[in-house]
Amino acid sequence: MAVYTQVSDEALAAFLDQYALGRPLAFKGIAEGVENSNYYLETSTGRFILTLFEKRVKAEDLPYFIGLKDHLAAKGFPCPRPVPGKDGQALRHLEGRPAVIITFLDGLSPRRPTTAQCRALGEGLARMHVALTDFPLRRENSLGPDSWPRLWDGRAASADALQTGLAGEIASDLDDIAAAGIPSLALPRATIHADLFPDNAFFLGDAFSGVIDFYFACTDALAYDLAVCLNAWAFEDSPSGNSDVLQYNFSKGANLIAGYESVRPLEAAERDALPVLARGAALRFFLTRLVDWTDTPAGALVKPKNPLEYAGRLAFHRKVTSIAGYGG
Amino acid sequence: MAVYTQVSDEALAAFLDQYALGRPLAFKGIAEGVENSNYYLETSTGRFILTLFEKRVKAEDLPYFIGLKDHLAAKGFPCPRPVPGKDGQALRHLEGRPAVIITFLDGLSPRRPTTAQCRALGEGLARMHVALTDFPLRRENSLGPDSWPRLWDGRAASADALQTGLAGEIASDLDDIAAAGIPSLALPRATIHADLFPDNAFFLGDAFSGVIDFYFACTDALAYDLAVCLNAWAFEDSPSGNSDVLQYNFSKGANLIAGYESVRPLEAAERDALPVLARGAALRFFLTRLVDWTDTPAGALVKPKNPLEYAGRLAFHRKVTSIAGYGG
Repeated sequence: MAVYTQVSDEALAAFLDQYALGRPLAFKGIAEGVENSNYYLETSTGRFILTLFEKRVKAEDLPYFIGLKDHLAAKGFPCPRPVPGKDGQALRHLEGRPAVIITFLDGLSPRRPTTAQCRALGEGLARMHVALTDFPLRRENSLGPDSWPRLWDGRAASADALQTGLAGEIASDLDDIAAAGIPSLALPRATIHADLFPDNAFFLGDAFSGVIDFYFACTDALAYDLAVCLNAWAFEDSPSGNSDVLQYNFSKGANLIAGYESVRPLEAAERDALPVLARGAALRFFLTRLVDWTDTPAGALVKPKNPLEYAGRLAFHRKVTSIAGYGG
Repeated sequence: MAVYTQVSDEALAAFLDQYALGRPLAFKGIAEGVENSNYYLETSTGRFILTLFEKRVKAEDLPYFIGLKDHLAAKGFPCPRPVPGKDGQALRHLEGRPAVIITFLDGLSPRRPTTAQCRALGEGLARMHVALTDFPLRRENSLGPDSWPRLWDGRAASADALQTGLAGEIASDLDDIAAAGIPSLALPRATIHADLFPDNAFFLGDAFSGVIDFYFACTDALAYDLAVCLNAWAFEDSPSGNSDVLQYNFSKGANLIAGYESVRPLEAAERDALPVLARGAALRFFLTRLVDWTDTPAGALVKPKNPLEYAGRLAFHRKVTSIAGYGG
């Protein structure tokens, strides 16, 4: 939650000179996103977001992300659309960083999604998958199953320091997931968001109004995207208010799956694979959080998220044997 | 630069129910302001800023700040206007904090003001003073001359740790300023902003478009407000690019004073007092920064500003003997 790169008056003026967006009326740093710097930009022709890409996004991936949003917007799927400059290019540089201007998308990110929002999100996710079926560019999932043993390498002591006995559980998760052979399963694979958490989805009331922040998008199993969403949308703190006790909200999960299937019914292989995909997705976020948790220096601008939230999800997934366990 | 207080979906919905602003279309934390939490709020009827007041602003002062903005807006001076709820009240509570919705003001804060912007700021400051002449509420300047010895008490070692010999210089600044007896000088006193730094002023190009963030406003000498602005607007890093060498930009200072006097000519007593007021204003910001610098724990959300930037200004002010030294 931060703005990492400051933009000088001269640099902003020179940057905007390359667009036909009129004169600037407002420019404010937004306290959102942990990967990039985002500014609210208003000009005499409309409202925009200016994004400066920080180090974690690879410059060579940017044409893929821009092409993806262009493709979705052209299909009428609600997402920010990259704005080209006078030269037709959307991607340029500002303050030494790759930068784009994208259109402003109306909507609010839920802090605690409702069941109705989970259903609408499931529908939106499936609409996005359908719209991306013919997206021609490809990008490997750099945080897919093959990367998980690598992320875990040397982290066992950190895991046990967080929670005694956790290292052994994670090791057996990795063994079980390797045995399931996710990459070789016969699952429909196309373009997925791979990070569709509530802060990356917009709603107007309970109506889905769009998706933002595609910077983990890649070519992978569509059902894995649904598995990420089950982790991100259907777990919540216990009703007792004890935030250490994480519960799967069966109603939210069932609605998310039903919403998805109302647009794109899952194939039998996808239904069968959902438990291991959900467990794998939880492991992916556990592992990247564990890396951030142990590698982020004290006093850093952005406080790392607690990996244990995903250890709690893993404990749930270990006991699920079929999609029915998620309400599907 | 942070959002300190998060707002839940339910709390925001219940809060907006108390207004006739239509349905929310966007709600984003703004990475600006070090005292309060600010959100960009867009509804079907317009654009607003939602401010939650954090601990440094005293709740009993809020009616003063709200009344002040109401008064200025009623006079046509460009500033955010507090938005009343259906009950006519602008001040209410959200997430356990006092909170207000204010109108959105177009404009950009300069990072490095131009000479033309300094002139326009001077005019704007004087227009604000004139518009506030008949503002009936009063608030003592809690960071005025009487507070400075108290802020300094016990900080000499911290100052010397920053720069050898600095403690002795600050002590003699305090002696000289006490001898000048600022509070007893026969200066016009009314309502001042007291914190009109470039990030609190908006421009469209070089045209002044308004003032925000009145949370240090108080009843004090008008010329002291001009002295604060000379410190905040007319100093800059050396053209060599060495940021340790701070220079007074005579042209910017002269334009700031000329802009001010084009609307409200200074009285002889104000012109005579300007050097000690400018030195006092620099001391005030040096001292509050020194307190923040030594009292802020490492790893805090907001990094304290370096007090030495104001030690550099004090070194300049010590040598100025008349308003001509500032270009006035």
